Amino acid sequence: MSASPTPAPPGTAATAPAASPAGRPTLPDLASTDVVDLTAAVCDIASVSGEETALADAIETALRDRPHLEVLRDGDAVVARTRLGRDRRVVVAGHIDTVPVKENLPTGRRRGDDGEEELWGRGTTDMKGGVAVALHLAATVTEPLWDVTWVFYDHEEVEADLNGLGRLVRTRPDCVSGDLAVLGEPTAGGIEGGCNGTLRAEVRTHGRTAHSARAWRGVNAVHAAGEVLARLNRYTPAEVPVDGLVYREGLSAVGIRGGIATNMIPDECVVTVNYRFAPSRTPAEAEAHVREVFDGFDVEVTDLARGARPGLDDPLVAGFVAAVTAVTGGAPGPKYGWTDVARFAELGVPAVNFGPGDPMLAHADDERCPVGQIRTCARALGSWLAGATDGGTMGT
Amino acid sequence: MSASPTPAPPGTAATAPAASPAGRPTLPDLASTDVVDLTAAVCDIASVSGEETALADAIETALRDRPHLEVLRDGDAVVARTRLGRDRRVVVAGHIDTVPVKENLPTGRRRGDDGEEELWGRGTTDMKGGVAVALHLAATVTEPLWDVTWVFYDHEEVEADLNGLGRLVRTRPDCVSGDLAVLGEPTAGGIEGGCNGTLRAEVRTHGRTAHSARAWRGVNAVHAAGEVLARLNRYTPAEVPVDGLVYREGLSAVGIRGGIATNMIPDECVVTVNYRFAPSRTPAEAEAHVREVFDGFDVEVTDLARGARPGLDDPLVAGFVAAVTAVTGGAPGPKYGWTDVARFAELGVPAVNFGPGDPMLAHADDERCPVGQIRTCARALGSWLAGATDGGTMGT
Repeated sequence: MSASPTPAPPGTAATAPAASPAGRPTLPDLASTDVVDLTAAVCDIASVSGEETALADAIETALRDRPHLEVLRDGDAVVARTRLGRDRRVVVAGHIDTVPVKENLPTGRRRGDDGEEELWGRGTTDMKGGVAVALHLAATVTEPLWDVTWVFYDHEEVEADLNGLGRLVRTRPDCVSGDLAVLGEPTAGGIEGGCNGTLRAEVRTHGRTAHSARAWRGVNAVHAAGEVLARLNRYTPAEVPVDGLVYREGLSAVGIRGGIATNMIPDECVVTVNYRFAPSRTPAEAEAHVREVFDGFDVEVTDLARGARPGLDDPLVAGFVAAVTAVTGGAPGPKYGWTDVARFAELGVPAVNFGPGDPMLAHADDERCPVGQIRTCARALGSWLAGATDGGTMGT
Repeated sequence: MSASPTPAPPGTAATAPAASPAGRPTLPDLASTDVVDLTAAVCDIASVSGEETALADAIETALRDRPHLEVLRDGDAVVARTRLGRDRRVVVAGHIDTVPVKENLPTGRRRGDDGEEELWGRGTTDMKGGVAVALHLAATVTEPLWDVTWVFYDHEEVEADLNGLGRLVRTRPDCVSGDLAVLGEPTAGGIEGGCNGTLRAEVRTHGRTAHSARAWRGVNAVHAAGEVLARLNRYTPAEVPVDGLVYREGLSAVGIRGGIATNMIPDECVVTVNYRFAPSRTPAEAEAHVREVFDGFDVEVTDLARGARPGLDDPLVAGFVAAVTAVTGGAPGPKYGWTDVARFAELGVPAVNFGPGDPMLAHADDERCPVGQIRTCARALGSWLAGATDGGTMGT
């Protein structure tokens, strides 16, 4: 939202990542390193989707020797979990890949327009700030109130079928199951619960072509699409309360195309619609609703993904919200955009989004994150897990 | 309409065009050659747009020595005219270029499904049948009732700014002026008077983009186009009498496009509309009408060409219609599609379309023309010009 039009400044902390004797990059000690410095170190091991191995290796190495953690590796995903026998388990997850680097690494620091210190560079917002918070807490919160599974996964920024979290859900559900999932995607440090589902469909009208000089010999499919647009204009989106949050739905044309030549009556018109539906609706209900709205038209569903319930009516989740908002000061809201939290919904795990960074700066050439948000997220999540406001170890 | 799905048969009269001693192709004697044989000879001198010189040379040579004709050359257009001092002048025009040959030359003859003899090959319909009729009559009708200007022009099948008739209208209006123009484009031997004008415009809606998960933050330009389509659906095209014929108008969407990505609210939608307007309306009136229909929207006119009045209320034209329909038996109708007759309208010359061949077969791989239509057109036009039904010399 407040994105600077200028490109990222040259790194001012342009030290190469530390490297092991074998030449592979390593991370600094997770427990003793300031969480902002740790964020910079995680960013400076570049890990564009498909090239996550070096960072995954560094994460695995950094977690492997912690006696309170069991560490598993699955492709370029790393899972670390406690086995303390707590009655409830929390999953904290984040992807370790980024979109391509645009001359915005290594990271650098500078003051923003408001005087606040920012960490600049690829991944600072999406989402290595969240990853660094998780790594720091995985190392330091050795006796959490609940068992914790820390998930660092690959291939989030590319085609959905490559997504590392989706792979774990399908093949290693034990690695991602629990009673609440916290996904560290950027929310500017607020809590955004669950997410709406999303459905895309092509609503097609059919006609009969003719020369446009004799239009009455044809049937104009673009004219017929007028009724599709009229229904969209008449449509009133619902606002649906789910587990204590209100999800605003939407039904929008995101594209329209029709026409053969400028002297021909079009015989087909395709309106691509996108329905964002509350997480209390099943995908089947969402599809039935769209088919009802466009009753009489040719409707083909091309994409359909369920939403995720926020689960705020569960005492565990309510406790999370209370602890975090005590630190951050903000009230939780619903997540409208579809995110990987919905992958947890497939396992019945309520999920929230919570991480540092302005989501509007994700993927931007001038990607950056206020360092204060990284520290606040670490303190808030850490205090909840540890059952105390021990922000002192969180690198404040 | 009754196009055969099979490609053109191999030529069965596959003799190479006659050639002069210098090796350049020539046409047989225009007066003594049967008009269908002459059509085949004209077709067999291939003259795809831009390559008309050989045929233009042959036409010029074949007309040059006729004592009743003055012959002019302008690029690859040939104009031949009488100077008999008649009080009225008729222009008979046809283009000599074709679309590219698709293994459908040399011409051949075969029986159609209805047993009628057909001449097959590129140009037989569009429009070397009409050209051969004109060449035959230019040579044989030495004392027409009215002065006649015979125009054979280039570059009709390509970009409008190359059109040879347009060039003559701009640079040699004396070569194309008169009281009636007869354009030999295929009308299946009927008279189609004048033509409607045509206007194309882009009607644009504007919005504001947003992520489709938060559609309410944007303004959907595709939804806004619903009102454009609603106006098209409410529109009742006029039927406009002009000079004794009724022109049916039309206002159609010929294309629509909008959309940025399937998760974005479109900020622009463009509806391309085509207005076909009666020849009694000026282009300025047509534009004002379209702007009125889409009042409140952003309208950009991208193409605008006047129509052509048929002039059937003129005794000269009425006489032409009476003479031709006495031979062909059909009543005249309006031309809906825009044709080169409109170029005569720029000079104030009423114009009709009249020629052999089914226009639906123009440009088709199986282009062909019933030989009977070629003979009938020659007989009808010749009898009117000569003031007698001397079909005997027309090659019946």
